[in-house]
Amino acid sequence: MLMGQNLIFTNDVLAAIKRLANGGDHNMTVWIADVNTARLVNPAPPRLITIPDGDENKTLETVKHVWDEMERMGVTRRSLAINLGGGMVTDLGGWAAATFKRGMRFINVPTTLLGAVDAAVGGKTGFNYNGLKNEIGAFAPASDVIISTRFFGTLPLQEMKSGFAEVLKHAMLSDRDEFLRLLNHDFHTPINHDNLLERLRRSVQVKVDIVASDPNEQGNRKALNLGHTVGHAFESLAMKRGKPVPHGYAVAWGLVTEAVLSHLLLKFPSEDVHLLGSFVRDNYRDFPFTCDDYDELLDLMRHDKKSRNGEITCTLLTSVGDYHIDQTVTPDDLTAALDILRDHLGQ
Amino acid sequence: MLMGQNLIFTNDVLAAIKRLANGGDHNMTVWIADVNTARLVNPAPPRLITIPDGDENKTLETVKHVWDEMERMGVTRRSLAINLGGGMVTDLGGWAAATFKRGMRFINVPTTLLGAVDAAVGGKTGFNYNGLKNEIGAFAPASDVIISTRFFGTLPLQEMKSGFAEVLKHAMLSDRDEFLRLLNHDFHTPINHDNLLERLRRSVQVKVDIVASDPNEQGNRKALNLGHTVGHAFESLAMKRGKPVPHGYAVAWGLVTEAVLSHLLLKFPSEDVHLLGSFVRDNYRDFPFTCDDYDELLDLMRHDKKSRNGEITCTLLTSVGDYHIDQTVTPDDLTAALDILRDHLGQ
Repeated sequence: MLMGQNLIFTNDVLAAIKRLANGGDHNMTVWIADVNTARLVNPAPPRLITIPDGDENKTLETVKHVWDEMERMGVTRRSLAINLGGGMVTDLGGWAAATFKRGMRFINVPTTLLGAVDAAVGGKTGFNYNGLKNEIGAFAPASDVIISTRFFGTLPLQEMKSGFAEVLKHAMLSDRDEFLRLLNHDFHTPINHDNLLERLRRSVQVKVDIVASDPNEQGNRKALNLGHTVGHAFESLAMKRGKPVPHGYAVAWGLVTEAVLSHLLLKFPSEDVHLLGSFVRDNYRDFPFTCDDYDELLDLMRHDKKSRNGEITCTLLTSVGDYHIDQTVTPDDLTAALDILRDHLGQ
Repeated sequence: MLMGQNLIFTNDVLAAIKRLANGGDHNMTVWIADVNTARLVNPAPPRLITIPDGDENKTLETVKHVWDEMERMGVTRRSLAINLGGGMVTDLGGWAAATFKRGMRFINVPTTLLGAVDAAVGGKTGFNYNGLKNEIGAFAPASDVIISTRFFGTLPLQEMKSGFAEVLKHAMLSDRDEFLRLLNHDFHTPINHDNLLERLRRSVQVKVDIVASDPNEQGNRKALNLGHTVGHAFESLAMKRGKPVPHGYAVAWGLVTEAVLSHLLLKFPSEDVHLLGSFVRDNYRDFPFTCDDYDELLDLMRHDKKSRNGEITCTLLTSVGDYHIDQTVTPDDLTAALDILRDHLGQ
């Protein structure tokens, strides 16, 4: 299935959508967008399902709304769904399309950097349930993903940075030249669309290659967890304290911590730890934790849904591009790495 | 995926379940059964999710109950689910298992003849939504299906007959010797378990071969629709009038009607129409329709979810074992065939 996922990199989004919507043998097209992204389609298409935005609305109630609207519009298994939005829309819209009448074809048009390099590609769909993130879902890839930088001009800086952390991660898993190129990125100059689209192309390809090697997340796909074992703990603790941090900020801090662990355990070059550390210090500010939080952070890592038997495991690197999944790290390793992270961040 | 579906034909069900539950690398086992089939597991296993029985409970509410119980029991994506019951349990339990945390392995243990030869095998899962049958679902095959006749001793005669119609259908799609053997079946002698298990083995193999040729129901799988275009219309009209008929009875009447259509349009041998007609007349009594119902029946066929552009299409046969999907039939053909059906049924 996944092999058939068609990725289109273009800065002429409308033409690409039209080509897909007018080709194929589907009997009708239905759009799914959130209240903000729905405004991007002008004039409104005849069948547009609008959902509320935000992760707090990624719920069964919203799924039911999409199913009910599909029913009302006479959508069938031979219809085409177009998901236009960030990760929330592509995850939830993809799930609704993949399950309505046992599934129709759908395409993703991510409108955020994070969505483009992460959620929209690879086939994970689903929603939050009982307060647990992505608790219900399926592996169901979009037939086509249209990736463009055209929507990013209006993205808040914080969201650009958040997505960029995943771009960095993909480079760290694959290509030192690209890694160094990204570390020269300046968030304060206007977007160079052609250049950014090329960065996206390379970044997404890394994910595609890893997912293709392991579509149902049995092993190798854990490579994509780089930065996330530690990053999720930062994200969860911040959330728990009612002061959430953007996902990508937590990932950026997690990448530095896991680069330090890679240095300590697998001799990952200290030069690259330093380059990464400086970039993260300059661009991902206000790390909200101190050494008093270590115990709670370690506890969260032990209870991560990917941990086994309470052991903390990470994906670590021997060098940029050379990753090793399922590396066990001890509490002492982590304590040392968190200390060094705080040094890098100047805190 | 489907190719990996492991079918176990045995009359020692418990040993087969134990072998699967004790092997494998799952971290725990959870059972899903309805209030009746739950009693078959004695002593009760440590993790047993009980759901109400009956198609009217094949709803999102019941799905949520299963998800919530899985949550409460600490089930993970590395757990194993065992669905014990008829088609309602294997459809809904399979769906819950395939979607909880994006899916865990599950095995089906069908307890009805209809479940064994139809619902449990082939990967369709789902539930009824907004009053529409199997409106939400996914193609997600059980890793293993344990097929046994042991549960059938206590099945009501009407349920045995209902399942047997699908066994007949499979023989009509594949093998005239088997077809003739089945027409000699006597429902009033005690079950010969070894013989019936052999019939099941052959019957299920027909479905498996057809599904394997078309896992996502794009074309060839429509062969399995034999008897169902007309059968569904009988079932729906009876339901609409508040006097439902068993699914298999409607299918049996549908098989005769479509055999007649096959004779009229594709020269299917009249001898086989007669043999089938006599068997159905003797065993599937009380056909509840007259010529006054033809218009309404035709209308239902035009609105079947598999019909296109209001044309009525059936799977028809040139001979037993030689099927042709997507055969268009006219209202006149159908009127003639329904008249001949009523002659066969002596009504």
